[in-house]
Amino acid sequence: MSIRISIDAMGGDQAPYVIIEGLARIVEDFKDITFQIYGSDAEVLPLLKNHQKLQSVSTFIPTTEIISADTKPSAAVRGFKDSSMRQAIMAVREKRADGVISAGNTGAYMALAKIILGTLEGIDRPAITGLVPSIVGPKVMLDLGANVDVNPQNIIEFSLMGVAFAKIVLQLKNPSVGLLNIGSEELKGNAVLQVAQQMLRSTKCLENYYGFIEGDDISKGTVDVIVADGFMGNISLKTMEGTARLMSHFLRQAIEQSLLSKVGALLARPALKFVKNKLDPSKYNGAPFLGLKGIAVKSHGGTDIAGFYNAVMVTADMIRQNINQNISNMILEFSHKLKEDESSFHLSVKGAS
Amino acid sequence: MSIRISIDAMGGDQAPYVIIEGLARIVEDFKDITFQIYGSDAEVLPLLKNHQKLQSVSTFIPTTEIISADTKPSAAVRGFKDSSMRQAIMAVREKRADGVISAGNTGAYMALAKIILGTLEGIDRPAITGLVPSIVGPKVMLDLGANVDVNPQNIIEFSLMGVAFAKIVLQLKNPSVGLLNIGSEELKGNAVLQVAQQMLRSTKCLENYYGFIEGDDISKGTVDVIVADGFMGNISLKTMEGTARLMSHFLRQAIEQSLLSKVGALLARPALKFVKNKLDPSKYNGAPFLGLKGIAVKSHGGTDIAGFYNAVMVTADMIRQNINQNISNMILEFSHKLKEDESSFHLSVKGAS
Repeated sequence: MSIRISIDAMGGDQAPYVIIEGLARIVEDFKDITFQIYGSDAEVLPLLKNHQKLQSVSTFIPTTEIISADTKPSAAVRGFKDSSMRQAIMAVREKRADGVISAGNTGAYMALAKIILGTLEGIDRPAITGLVPSIVGPKVMLDLGANVDVNPQNIIEFSLMGVAFAKIVLQLKNPSVGLLNIGSEELKGNAVLQVAQQMLRSTKCLENYYGFIEGDDISKGTVDVIVADGFMGNISLKTMEGTARLMSHFLRQAIEQSLLSKVGALLARPALKFVKNKLDPSKYNGAPFLGLKGIAVKSHGGTDIAGFYNAVMVTADMIRQNINQNISNMILEFSHKLKEDESSFHLSVKGAS
Repeated sequence: MSIRISIDAMGGDQAPYVIIEGLARIVEDFKDITFQIYGSDAEVLPLLKNHQKLQSVSTFIPTTEIISADTKPSAAVRGFKDSSMRQAIMAVREKRADGVISAGNTGAYMALAKIILGTLEGIDRPAITGLVPSIVGPKVMLDLGANVDVNPQNIIEFSLMGVAFAKIVLQLKNPSVGLLNIGSEELKGNAVLQVAQQMLRSTKCLENYYGFIEGDDISKGTVDVIVADGFMGNISLKTMEGTARLMSHFLRQAIEQSLLSKVGALLARPALKFVKNKLDPSKYNGAPFLGLKGIAVKSHGGTDIAGFYNAVMVTADMIRQNINQNISNMILEFSHKLKEDESSFHLSVKGAS
């Protein structure tokens, strides 16, 4: 059976060009993926014409509105009924597609996806989930910015969803989980993290719970799934991006300083390329909104063709492996364990009295 | 008049060696700095013997206890009466020294400094303050981990203290300030940041308030003073450290891959050294606890001699320029402006009714 993905062709800095080219590459490599492409006919059709194969496995649905980077989420929810973003999400809701991808306005996309698709039973807050580089390979991190204020239950939901995602994209049997904190000692951090850790330990709902981790554990690769609220997750991710750019900047600046350095850099070019490749953002592109009734993946707005290709791969993997069924099962198991835990707690309190 | 600094010689990974050697270098370069050195006589005296000049401008006070990295802050506060850390702080309280430096246990040092020195009038929470690298040079960032939960007033205190520090260490007349957030738009973030920004704007207590900044603005150098709660500040700082190490690791790994790369790296050695130097942690060593009645500076526990030297320089600069008087003046001015603001608010409400 083929995998059907609906595409918002109008979101992102270089839409629809980068998007259509990315899809064209996918259909060269995979036979089981088909697309429903939503966008402006004047802009998309000329691009599609160049790709016979893509045309043959796609349906193009013209839309008349575009949600831009400046559109407020509230405005996107109220209006823009015939926008490519909304229509692409609707395809998932109406079971005409198995998943949706947009490189557009993150806030608007999250708001629309939440309202149109709804959240999975037992999930209070969906989370933006992504891959981050570490010394031992990519790791999963969430929430990257959807939820500014969270409670302990949300942190546990993020942990379970992160595990489900890590199993699929990192192909791990038993991913380890850590909560991002300001120290690894048991008593560090705020009340939300304290209670969340206590619940994770007492319910044993994660097979491989590591404990608290610190900021530098992210790139050390201490755990497979890094869990944080959207505030910390977002700031941490952007700090990483900034620091990587800072080091590249210093390196370029240093190399320019002398002829010898320039020659050296030329000789070490494959090495520098290796580093660049290790941190290549397109390899990390494709951030799912986990916890929704339906698969919705966010591509970086500034992505290139290889990056959009990667976002499609992530989406297809999640569909193939039925991630939402996995998440639902884990959530159900957790609520059972929580109830058991509470009743044993009640029993022990009764026994004590 | 000479600057008198009290030194906890027993804190840090390589104490007292790195500390005594750092002080010895200082007295070679500066004539107006004297020291009171607190520590174990068996360990410190043999080191001091090698440095005639340092001995001649220092007093050594033997202490019998050591607060280690594992000592809990609560235990440090209750016991360890004759510890080098406590005694060194006491010297500031009793006006026998103008500032104190320790490379020991941060939590214990902050707890003791807070209790022994007390906070400046108008300051609710002292903050750990440090320098971080950016494309346009070092910038000031606080709080780096002292305060997990903060209110808007604390954020404003941090802003004012950060400006006072930036004026001294970065030698800026009018440092710009940004609040670390998940987006630069006015409505982004949590209630604490929203209210803090509103108060900063309405009281105009900062001459050069920029607004909200994001994680990648830190290394871009968008503002001179980056203000965050201790949670975000700490995670962000450690994420930076981790990412820098990650990139160095990939670079080393890449260079090892071929003879050509190795030759290239050899030729580009001055360039690589330049980058290393730009990010050298010893240049950033010396993190004051701002907001205390007395100057207390934390050195990194893993610092080297050059790093400890730098921490002494930071301390001496703060003493020379009377940072606490500056902070007190700014706090006073702010509370006046806040009152004016409130009374004008009341007036306008009355006028409206």
